[in-house]
Amino acid sequence: MKKFVNDPRDFVPEMLKGIALANPGTLKYVPEYNLIMRADAPSDDKVSIIQGSGSGHEPAHVMVVGKGMLDAACPGDVFSAPPMDYVLETSKLLATPKGVLHIVNNYTGDRMAFEMGQEMAEADGITISTLIVDDDVAVKDSTYTVGRRGVAGNFFVIKAVGAASEQGAGLDELVRIGQKVNSVTRTMGMALTSCTPPAKGSPLFQLGDDEMEMGVGIHGEPGRRREKLASANAIVDELLEAVASDLPFKQGDDVALMINGLGGTPVSELYLLYGYAHEQLGKRGINVRRNYVGNYCTSLDMAGASLTLSRLDDEITGLLAAPAEIAVRTF
Amino acid sequence: MKKFVNDPRDFVPEMLKGIALANPGTLKYVPEYNLIMRADAPSDDKVSIIQGSGSGHEPAHVMVVGKGMLDAACPGDVFSAPPMDYVLETSKLLATPKGVLHIVNNYTGDRMAFEMGQEMAEADGITISTLIVDDDVAVKDSTYTVGRRGVAGNFFVIKAVGAASEQGAGLDELVRIGQKVNSVTRTMGMALTSCTPPAKGSPLFQLGDDEMEMGVGIHGEPGRRREKLASANAIVDELLEAVASDLPFKQGDDVALMINGLGGTPVSELYLLYGYAHEQLGKRGINVRRNYVGNYCTSLDMAGASLTLSRLDDEITGLLAAPAEIAVRTF
Repeated sequence: MKKFVNDPRDFVPEMLKGIALANPGTLKYVPEYNLIMRADAPSDDKVSIIQGSGSGHEPAHVMVVGKGMLDAACPGDVFSAPPMDYVLETSKLLATPKGVLHIVNNYTGDRMAFEMGQEMAEADGITISTLIVDDDVAVKDSTYTVGRRGVAGNFFVIKAVGAASEQGAGLDELVRIGQKVNSVTRTMGMALTSCTPPAKGSPLFQLGDDEMEMGVGIHGEPGRRREKLASANAIVDELLEAVASDLPFKQGDDVALMINGLGGTPVSELYLLYGYAHEQLGKRGINVRRNYVGNYCTSLDMAGASLTLSRLDDEITGLLAAPAEIAVRTF
Repeated sequence: MKKFVNDPRDFVPEMLKGIALANPGTLKYVPEYNLIMRADAPSDDKVSIIQGSGSGHEPAHVMVVGKGMLDAACPGDVFSAPPMDYVLETSKLLATPKGVLHIVNNYTGDRMAFEMGQEMAEADGITISTLIVDDDVAVKDSTYTVGRRGVAGNFFVIKAVGAASEQGAGLDELVRIGQKVNSVTRTMGMALTSCTPPAKGSPLFQLGDDEMEMGVGIHGEPGRRREKLASANAIVDELLEAVASDLPFKQGDDVALMINGLGGTPVSELYLLYGYAHEQLGKRGINVRRNYVGNYCTSLDMAGASLTLSRLDDEITGLLAAPAEIAVRTF
């Protein structure tokens, strides 16, 4: 296993400790619940926004905690939903008079943990609403999912409700905004290689030297089909057609375009993909008004990428453009 | 070859096109010279700062062009110095009354291209000074180098002179600042895997499943020695001792600590390394005042990391904290 790891059981806590040490004063790490939270949360003036999911998708979600984004993230172990009592305790710690918003990517394990955590928190008098994200067009009813999976498009939902929450929006308004963003956001990804969970120590699935998995899930779930390795442009063509034809995105639409790396792909290749995708959208008369190129929602060390389109209107554009501060910084 | 690539000969231009399309209004791509430059450069009020090097180290250097950083970067092909006429033409395009600063990582090919480009540009009446970066403590007189190699510590030099240049510093002052930052900056890296140049299509060197290369260069040059794969903490211990004992960094020093990924390592692992390195520096009485965790200077898709320490004083701290805008953004 070619990874930086000590005891695999400590992989997540050691990472979380590093995040906290790198962000003194702004983030707080609560080891008992794998919790990363804003040091200044909760605030009586705003709804607290919480996301949980398995680890292994960094920077999602522990590294997008901060002003204008999440107030807290309670991850499980690698590719495992957080225990429901982590969800409960996180909700209690973050509770405010304006309520708590749970954002959950559509995986059965995550939904179960959050539903039970929500029920128990509500019994304690906390007001909670939940947003489900299901932007992945690749397949329905996947290995760990009923319906569509939630993947990198999750970023747009978090960014929009995070900004609205800073501006004072109430819980119902955040649910409206989040559902709207999710409804206009579509993603598909593909893998060039498998990925290796630290505790397993070997690749999660096997992929031949001349093969790729089109429509792969972010836990290595099977996609639409396994294909012969293709050129970068042919891969973008396939991802773009799957995503654009789904909503569908139409001539004249303004969109945000995200090229998301799955963890093991260098940023040089992501920009190469971006350039061609941007051009092809132009040929379809679809206008790229905002762009996102980098690692947003990964699959450990998987080489691969996903393409997300999110249709913009004035409200969403304003929320995406609002300032935010997160753990992953360049400067 | 598990990469996103079309014709390998187009890898660099296609990436550069993507960078330009993702940064309309702020960056300009000049295809004739592989040139990425600020759209608002040159400015009569400031020294223009230029870095060239081989490609394959992204975000260095084409993605750190922007206000407060580089005014332009003219890369060569993957792991190849830029042709001297690219250096000449870039210098001519960026020339200002206050002069031009070349920043060159210490590789023989890069130095040769920049020295000849400088001579020719000076013959055209352009005032140029050069900063050499050589922060890598791993080895002296490496495969492509006389003396020490220049690697990720280069970021600190660029950030400091970029900020000073925005504040109006003249060419001599920038040289003083850059030399000072280089003199207090030390780096060592290590590889868990090899890397694959697109045109080669296969790994640049072979590394066994249970091996790592300690002190590797960013073009896959041999390091200090090949070792049995070790735990994350043991790797940090070795990198930290090599770097800290070199300057040496001493009890009471204030430092910036960078954990730089080499391209194929997920950010989760980088934060795990960061947490332990931060703690170990604390035990030595060395104070981490600023931190940088992510991909700054990579080796294509190599899994691996480098550790950089840069000793801070008030002047350097102020320059590192100054605002900057670059191509690689999270929002």
